[in-house]
Amino acid sequence: MNSFKRLFEPRSVAVVGVSDDAARPGSQAVRALLKNGFAGKVYPVNPKYEQFEGLKCYPAVDHIDGPVDLVVIGVPAKGVLAVLEQSAAKKVPFAVVLSGGFRESGPEGIELEKKMLTIARDSGMRLIGPNCLGFANIHSNVYAAFGSITREPKLKAGSVSLVTQSGGFGYSLALGCAAAGVGFRHVIATGNETDIDTVQLIDALLDDPETEIIVAYIEGTRDGRALLNVGRRALAAGKPVLLWKGGVTEQGARAAASHTASLTGSYDFYRALFKQTGIVEIREIHEAVDFLKALAGAKYPSGGGVGVMGVSGGSAIVFADAGEPEGLSLCDLSESTQARLKDVVPNIGAVHNPIDLTAGYFSAANRERLKAAVLATLDDPSVHSLCVNLATTGSAGSVAAAEVLAGIAHETDKPVLVFSSAPADQITPALEIFDRARIPVLPSPSRAARAIAMLKRYGEAKVKLTDSAHASEAEGAAAQTNDLSDAIKKGSLSETESKEILAAAGIPVTKDVIVEGVDGAVFDMLKGPLVVKIVSPDIPHKTEIGGVKVGLRTREELESSIVEVLENARTHAPAARIEGVLVSEMVRGGFELIAGVVNDEVFGPVVVVGAGGIYTELLRDSACRLAPFDVKTAREMVDELQCRRIMDGARGSAALDVEAVAQALSALSRFAWDNRSIVKEVDVNPLFVLPQGVVAADALIIPSTTGNAKTAP
Amino acid sequence: MNSFKRLFEPRSVAVVGVSDDAARPGSQAVRALLKNGFAGKVYPVNPKYEQFEGLKCYPAVDHIDGPVDLVVIGVPAKGVLAVLEQSAAKKVPFAVVLSGGFRESGPEGIELEKKMLTIARDSGMRLIGPNCLGFANIHSNVYAAFGSITREPKLKAGSVSLVTQSGGFGYSLALGCAAAGVGFRHVIATGNETDIDTVQLIDALLDDPETEIIVAYIEGTRDGRALLNVGRRALAAGKPVLLWKGGVTEQGARAAASHTASLTGSYDFYRALFKQTGIVEIREIHEAVDFLKALAGAKYPSGGGVGVMGVSGGSAIVFADAGEPEGLSLCDLSESTQARLKDVVPNIGAVHNPIDLTAGYFSAANRERLKAAVLATLDDPSVHSLCVNLATTGSAGSVAAAEVLAGIAHETDKPVLVFSSAPADQITPALEIFDRARIPVLPSPSRAARAIAMLKRYGEAKVKLTDSAHASEAEGAAAQTNDLSDAIKKGSLSETESKEILAAAGIPVTKDVIVEGVDGAVFDMLKGPLVVKIVSPDIPHKTEIGGVKVGLRTREELESSIVEVLENARTHAPAARIEGVLVSEMVRGGFELIAGVVNDEVFGPVVVVGAGGIYTELLRDSACRLAPFDVKTAREMVDELQCRRIMDGARGSAALDVEAVAQALSALSRFAWDNRSIVKEVDVNPLFVLPQGVVAADALIIPSTTGNAKTAP
Repeated sequence: MNSFKRLFEPRSVAVVGVSDDAARPGSQAVRALLKNGFAGKVYPVNPKYEQFEGLKCYPAVDHIDGPVDLVVIGVPAKGVLAVLEQSAAKKVPFAVVLSGGFRESGPEGIELEKKMLTIARDSGMRLIGPNCLGFANIHSNVYAAFGSITREPKLKAGSVSLVTQSGGFGYSLALGCAAAGVGFRHVIATGNETDIDTVQLIDALLDDPETEIIVAYIEGTRDGRALLNVGRRALAAGKPVLLWKGGVTEQGARAAASHTASLTGSYDFYRALFKQTGIVEIREIHEAVDFLKALAGAKYPSGGGVGVMGVSGGSAIVFADAGEPEGLSLCDLSESTQARLKDVVPNIGAVHNPIDLTAGYFSAANRERLKAAVLATLDDPSVHSLCVNLATTGSAGSVAAAEVLAGIAHETDKPVLVFSSAPADQITPALEIFDRARIPVLPSPSRAARAIAMLKRYGEAKVKLTDSAHASEAEGAAAQTNDLSDAIKKGSLSETESKEILAAAGIPVTKDVIVEGVDGAVFDMLKGPLVVKIVSPDIPHKTEIGGVKVGLRTREELESSIVEVLENARTHAPAARIEGVLVSEMVRGGFELIAGVVNDEVFGPVVVVGAGGIYTELLRDSACRLAPFDVKTAREMVDELQCRRIMDGARGSAALDVEAVAQALSALSRFAWDNRSIVKEVDVNPLFVLPQGVVAADALIIPSTTGNAKTAP
Repeated sequence: MNSFKRLFEPRSVAVVGVSDDAARPGSQAVRALLKNGFAGKVYPVNPKYEQFEGLKCYPAVDHIDGPVDLVVIGVPAKGVLAVLEQSAAKKVPFAVVLSGGFRESGPEGIELEKKMLTIARDSGMRLIGPNCLGFANIHSNVYAAFGSITREPKLKAGSVSLVTQSGGFGYSLALGCAAAGVGFRHVIATGNETDIDTVQLIDALLDDPETEIIVAYIEGTRDGRALLNVGRRALAAGKPVLLWKGGVTEQGARAAASHTASLTGSYDFYRALFKQTGIVEIREIHEAVDFLKALAGAKYPSGGGVGVMGVSGGSAIVFADAGEPEGLSLCDLSESTQARLKDVVPNIGAVHNPIDLTAGYFSAANRERLKAAVLATLDDPSVHSLCVNLATTGSAGSVAAAEVLAGIAHETDKPVLVFSSAPADQITPALEIFDRARIPVLPSPSRAARAIAMLKRYGEAKVKLTDSAHASEAEGAAAQTNDLSDAIKKGSLSETESKEILAAAGIPVTKDVIVEGVDGAVFDMLKGPLVVKIVSPDIPHKTEIGGVKVGLRTREELESSIVEVLENARTHAPAARIEGVLVSEMVRGGFELIAGVVNDEVFGPVVVVGAGGIYTELLRDSACRLAPFDVKTAREMVDELQCRRIMDGARGSAALDVEAVAQALSALSRFAWDNRSIVKEVDVNPLFVLPQGVVAADALIIPSTTGNAKTAP
């Protein structure tokens, strides 16, 4: 934040492009600064005017008497470079370019934008925009913005900051949250992100003491690793980041490309990153609202057991339906909990979970009983969070419930959420009590369930961060222990060489050897049963010409099979070039997976695992994570696979060694990270998971032709 | 509706159980009737009072002077039967029992509820409840209800009727819709549904001219076929039914069982029913709101092509992301459309889809241009619906857009939806214009996309209804042509007998014959290649003892194989009882499906198809429909399967005969329907789909031990 201090808290703002036309962005910015009572100096700039809105108007930025912390530029695209040069000459540290007509408008615009960045880099000036709505600091009344951001009514001041690539949609997100009572700190629309991007701003906001939660809308990032790091920093700082990724489908990505020409990157990789950082993905405006409410409580359930109590059986059912797929359960209550509940719940109610308090229970007369019921439920060790369904309960009952829950909330670590469907204007006093106690009130039981599930996931990510060595430290340390690069650097690699390298990296592989004819030594080098296979670029279907023999257990079988496949090849494919016979260890049983590494331009090395064989196409069943990662993360990946069930022993067959898969994936991720500057791709196909262990039967490492600049160590 | 006329439009209402205690349900009902200005007569009943709320109070129902159309009962459970008997004696046609303490409270309550139904059946009186909040007719100020239904503020009158098993959650649904401006006709909470149930009420509401759309919340139905029929009737009547099924997960169902002891039935079967009837499933309160708004327009897109235009690129991206998984696409616009758009869209905008009108476009000055842009887009034959993203556009711009769109809306069959995020109180005039023109305004682009997708599905269901012969007619006609029942009636069936019956019903099967030894005739009866398999209850693993031989192409191979498997059995399992040798036609290639019929207690015969073999467990990949159904519906089922991709020819293999699968499933559905009184279950496993045709390699029909009363012809 320090480096951006004068951007967000400027002592003086120059606005270039003011005009009698009130619709001009510059005019709007100056009016917003004045109307909202910005305490610093405002310098309108336009050579045609002496005065603007009662302020002295300057012919150019470099004519301004005092120092300028921030210049806001709203002139047409072709005039922007000159203004930036003047600003650079005046040593202005920050500029916000509202004007459009750059990268998004074609080749000329691309050129202009490049020159803009050159001016900034040469002078050390930092830029927001171009092609953006600008930003507002709601607490300090800074409005370096136009359009909807400057429109009445002013956003309420609060602790949520918003960063958005799309001004129009991003501010829709802000308005949706504002309508639900959310208050804001900074609202920043970044547009083309020529210089400062969303990730840098999130990073800066983590250091802003007034920002507690960050909401972001992005269409793409240039640097997935920076997002990974900022996500981890946010998690460590206890500041949740809610992120909406636009352009996640083919059509959405196409629309994004034509919008701000964003590189959207693979959605799968973003989702992996979210899991690895605790970044909370949002896919709806109302979901952002729900999650902001829930996160404001800053309490995270340590498990999926939820106590549900209230006056509406249907609401409990709806909660259960929404919670179950998210990993929540209406846990069994202990006998002692039920006994305590019996004392305070009417006979016609229910003291098992969901707890039926019976209609009309929420009332002043029942305050002590409700308190006892809530405490009994929260004391149950199976209960990790509580949802109280007020449903249609009216004003007096809601106030009674609010007072009881507010009194208890500060004494428990377990999140308590409320579902109320009463019209907000009828239960305002209760809502105010809940709000002060940071008890989230959700408008449906299903939305309450999803909010609790989000809190649980976020809490788990926090625990994981604490449990494991800090990931960026691990990344740094590992990059030193790179002793495999020489082997890879020599250029293209064969499957045999690839397997040797992976074996050294800790991934079990089947051994194989190419022989030219009968070779007595081979039998002792490999572990039977063995497979022999003719090696020829000219014989695609080796089985059909008798070029494959499997299940060879004795030296004699091996030797005669080598002779046989060579003869068969000579007989059935006399013109084929024969490079030898591949002798391999044979893998029996188990289940075929595929694993691999993609060294992505945006995200660096990403490890993917999926169901192999015919399942690959059928299921599109895969999971991925950004390398490197530990065995715990690798286990999560395997658990995400649909084919996970098979590994538990489908149809009475033996359970397979999931732990070995996890270890191999973690090793692969370490290898991929250590060699990220020289490895473009790794394909391990198939990777057999066996009742004991895992083994790669085939693998190929594809070196980078050029080092990957993004993630080179 | 006629049969329920005096229930919903009573000329006189007796309320039993009024009291000085204002919280008593009876007291609440009388006060609601008076406060809301019910025009008919109100008769409070309580022997302890002379007067209640200024009205004469009667000691019992049979002491009331005039005729009574409806009695509302709020006395404790043990007093209800006496009141019902008095009411029956007075020939009251309808009763609403608000009181709880029946089925939901244990064995005594179950008895009471049975007696209640007997009184009703014997007298012809119809009952709502017990254990319910009752109902309100908002137009006629009838309040046979207590609790939230009677609470201020009164619901706005409108054309939506709500039927709900759960009073508390159902009324939450009503309040959520009311907050979004939805007006209501009838609001009915049915509780235990001893007599009148949700399905009967939906049926009645279809005949109510004031009801245009029905919203329902159910936890279960006793008669899935009645729901199927009422769903089809609603579709034919053009009255959409929005249905929320509670208890769809294991935990939700358990909570439902302990709530009103509802039989929830299989969610899969409900979802099949929704597809077969056009019933619109809802899973959120705000979703109900969105869909009600969208359906009010009564226009349905004839395809998935959507034109998206507006002032926010991000909003278009979000629309595309949400629309693509729902089958919507931002279709390409024709050159002539783009040419027309070029005339009226600024140069820095975009005339391809999504159409970028550029910031600030919505304004009075641009009215004619906007009109031209909208008309050009709607004229494009690839465009089946239009979404206009106003996003944060303020009051004046929104009014301009509203006037233009309202002017066009009545001239097009294509639905036009609007996304606006401006605070509602700032754009009230625009919202009123949109409302009058029945143009739905959604609060996010993604919710607009889902609303359009819903309209598309509903429109498709309508078209399908028109296209196909009316299903209930088909059902009726088919039940006559039942000539297979004799074979089934004889009791348990072998696999061979089952396959013969299914073959006669139009499902291709492999042939097989059991022989005792070498039998020359068999070879000529079957089509090779053949398989022989030892038949013995004592040899579980037939392959291991050499009891199976496959791929037999000649008479000699067959004969020697029969001898061989018999010998092997005698050698390796000398004690085993040998019943013979099964000779079967061998199926090669293709993909293994499973198909079957479940004759469900609630839904009658349902046909299920799924991926077979190991996929059955791995994928849990299945689709189902209520029998009978035509080939078109069967095709939809197959298209729902994940393994559908394999049938298109995975990994370069031949495409498989999906059409033959559809025909077999339709034939199976016809068979299941025709024989629903005698067939409990059919298992076809495996059903091989081949490059040409389909064949059942194994099948078993399990007859009902007793006829299925629900669906007996």
